[in-house]
Amino acid sequence: MKPDHTLQRPARIDLPRLLRRIAALAEVGAIDGGGVCRLALTDEDRMGRDLVVSWMRELGLSVSIDGIGNVVGVRAGQEDLPPVMTGSHIDTVRTGGRYDGNLGVLAGLEVMAALDDAGIATRRPLAVAFFTNEEGARFAPDMMGSLVFQGDLPLQQALDTRGIDGTTVGENLARIGYDGPAPAGQNRVHAFVELHVEQGPVLEHEDVTIGAVTGVQGIHWTEFTVEGTSNHAGTTPMRLRHDAGIVAARIACFVRDLTRELGGAPLATVGQVQFFPNLVNVIPNRAVFTVDLRNTEGPVLADAVQRTLAYAMDVAKAEGVRLSHRTLADFAPVAFDEGVVARVESIARRHGHSVRRMPSGAGHDAQILARMCPAGMVFVPSVAGLSHNVAELTHDHDIQAGADVLLDLMLELAA
Amino acid sequence: MKPDHTLQRPARIDLPRLLRRIAALAEVGAIDGGGVCRLALTDEDRMGRDLVVSWMRELGLSVSIDGIGNVVGVRAGQEDLPPVMTGSHIDTVRTGGRYDGNLGVLAGLEVMAALDDAGIATRRPLAVAFFTNEEGARFAPDMMGSLVFQGDLPLQQALDTRGIDGTTVGENLARIGYDGPAPAGQNRVHAFVELHVEQGPVLEHEDVTIGAVTGVQGIHWTEFTVEGTSNHAGTTPMRLRHDAGIVAARIACFVRDLTRELGGAPLATVGQVQFFPNLVNVIPNRAVFTVDLRNTEGPVLADAVQRTLAYAMDVAKAEGVRLSHRTLADFAPVAFDEGVVARVESIARRHGHSVRRMPSGAGHDAQILARMCPAGMVFVPSVAGLSHNVAELTHDHDIQAGADVLLDLMLELAA
Repeated sequence: MKPDHTLQRPARIDLPRLLRRIAALAEVGAIDGGGVCRLALTDEDRMGRDLVVSWMRELGLSVSIDGIGNVVGVRAGQEDLPPVMTGSHIDTVRTGGRYDGNLGVLAGLEVMAALDDAGIATRRPLAVAFFTNEEGARFAPDMMGSLVFQGDLPLQQALDTRGIDGTTVGENLARIGYDGPAPAGQNRVHAFVELHVEQGPVLEHEDVTIGAVTGVQGIHWTEFTVEGTSNHAGTTPMRLRHDAGIVAARIACFVRDLTRELGGAPLATVGQVQFFPNLVNVIPNRAVFTVDLRNTEGPVLADAVQRTLAYAMDVAKAEGVRLSHRTLADFAPVAFDEGVVARVESIARRHGHSVRRMPSGAGHDAQILARMCPAGMVFVPSVAGLSHNVAELTHDHDIQAGADVLLDLMLELAA
Repeated sequence: MKPDHTLQRPARIDLPRLLRRIAALAEVGAIDGGGVCRLALTDEDRMGRDLVVSWMRELGLSVSIDGIGNVVGVRAGQEDLPPVMTGSHIDTVRTGGRYDGNLGVLAGLEVMAALDDAGIATRRPLAVAFFTNEEGARFAPDMMGSLVFQGDLPLQQALDTRGIDGTTVGENLARIGYDGPAPAGQNRVHAFVELHVEQGPVLEHEDVTIGAVTGVQGIHWTEFTVEGTSNHAGTTPMRLRHDAGIVAARIACFVRDLTRELGGAPLATVGQVQFFPNLVNVIPNRAVFTVDLRNTEGPVLADAVQRTLAYAMDVAKAEGVRLSHRTLADFAPVAFDEGVVARVESIARRHGHSVRRMPSGAGHDAQILARMCPAGMVFVPSVAGLSHNVAELTHDHDIQAGADVLLDLMLELAA
């Protein structure tokens, strides 16, 4: 349906229409338990892409596909200016939910449809995008498509990336027909806003409907390897032990306790550990484990990393074991545009929704777009904080609330 | 060679002969690195048994095999009394050494040979035994043969035991031809002494040659399962976490620290741990780990177990996770006969060897025999404390020292 700009009336989100699109997209790559498996650039991803592109075309959007497979649908504005863009991703992890990423893309489409219904034209063009391989579950790094779109990741380097099955991004893009002609890395965007499920428990826990996302916290991942001596647990006195396992345990306790001392919004997780030989009655001669440290404040995060390393070296020395470590990830915190954050807050309040400022704990395409234009995000609650899980759920009324905020936010930014 | 009792002179251990037997037995089931794989009741075990039995017969011993495959070779005494017995086992773990168990059996044979060489007759008969499935690496429980020999484990129950490959002890015994006719569980033994490698680092560390083993420490194994909630490490504030992993880490630190407070000779080991889903950025929803607590004092061990359980419940409650536990092993400490221990000390000193009293950290057949007669053990140093390892090593001069002590010990007990 083409917009009829002569019939202008308040635009309204059509929740059933949005929910139908969410359900239809969730059928592509559906897995048991209500979840979705559409790893980037698989046949399932292609089918999902085809479906969303068909909806873009039904809405009369001008669809372009760039060399990394990012798809952008543009709704013309009254003036030929850089667009106000929304969007997210439609790839999922192996046992993903139906809202992560998909909600942002489909709510963007719903905004377009609602404006069409209301006959509203905007001064600036509006665009809805889905970016390739946001999850990073098949190809590293994650947020690959937005990085190429923004220009920090060279296209050819992205195309040459080999995934977990040994094939490259480039050959998979060609195979599924999404190696598009649009130039990547030279885009101009006036502002970028992304609606996303929180993927955490804070909004639900505090009974708040809308998160005005202030930025993305910094992330530092370290993998520690402790090498001690394997000996019989029954014949080796405590004083003669070089136990790799106890060193891992002490560091895990240290980083947990450290979060009580630090400023910012400190997070510390030891999610992965392996002991060798991993037998009841043998002192571990090797422990490999990860420490995931996050903070909204860059200097506090750096301090946490340093203190953890210093403690780890001390405790390893005391136990007489060797310690090595490597950095698996290191992202500085990203601050979203204060103007966008303030708009999210005020629009949410205008709609009668409770709202709070909060950092994002996970990475999102919006943090990459923030390098090229004012950017921000709108969070809606995740039931039980679950995400990357087939049981991922956001209630319909929260989807409505989020889409309402997105609609007004895009209208304001495009005015 | 038959003993010629008319030519009595001091008996002397022939070290080269003992070492040759050790080397020959180590060739049966030899594996890379100088180790041995002779799991109980395998073809390799049968070949090892056949070799040792052939040596028993060469020495003129009266060989009997009981229903669980224990083999006893008896050298007649001047009086028909219950024998003074030595022995150990010749089964090994999958990557075992050549001394663990084997040394005790072959030193026992060497004692017989030395007495023959010297033309010495003893008042009591002397016996050397090897017991079936001491290691428990294929069939549980360990020390199975001595348990049946002593009478606490019914023969049929042992025969019906299924191993890691699904077959029973009984069918394997029949297959290798070691389901013997001698009655099990009705034996009379005057005293039992066992020479064994320490399997720990204490003797080497203290530069002591002979361990006069005072008993076997008590052992308590607990498997803990902690069940929390898996959530995103980046989106879940610390206060909302139910992290199974941190509870495991705290308990591991607790038991280590507890050993500093306890009396006796406390040992605590967390050797085995598994996190689920075991991903860098996911809070573990499940941690399964073991706690191995040991002590020479039964009441102190029981106290350690109780304090660990109480702490575990507290820390689990504080984190909001479920905790369950099951006991995997629970053996009370065993005290060896004071008279035997004192004899080991005085004989070692008479030979000019340094000696210390010490508990055994590992389980041994002697602790089962201690239920039916005065029993004791002689330890010799393990290089680097290594055992259950192809690199297991006891120096030749220590083997000589241990065999010398064993010889005199048996002579004194048989007088």
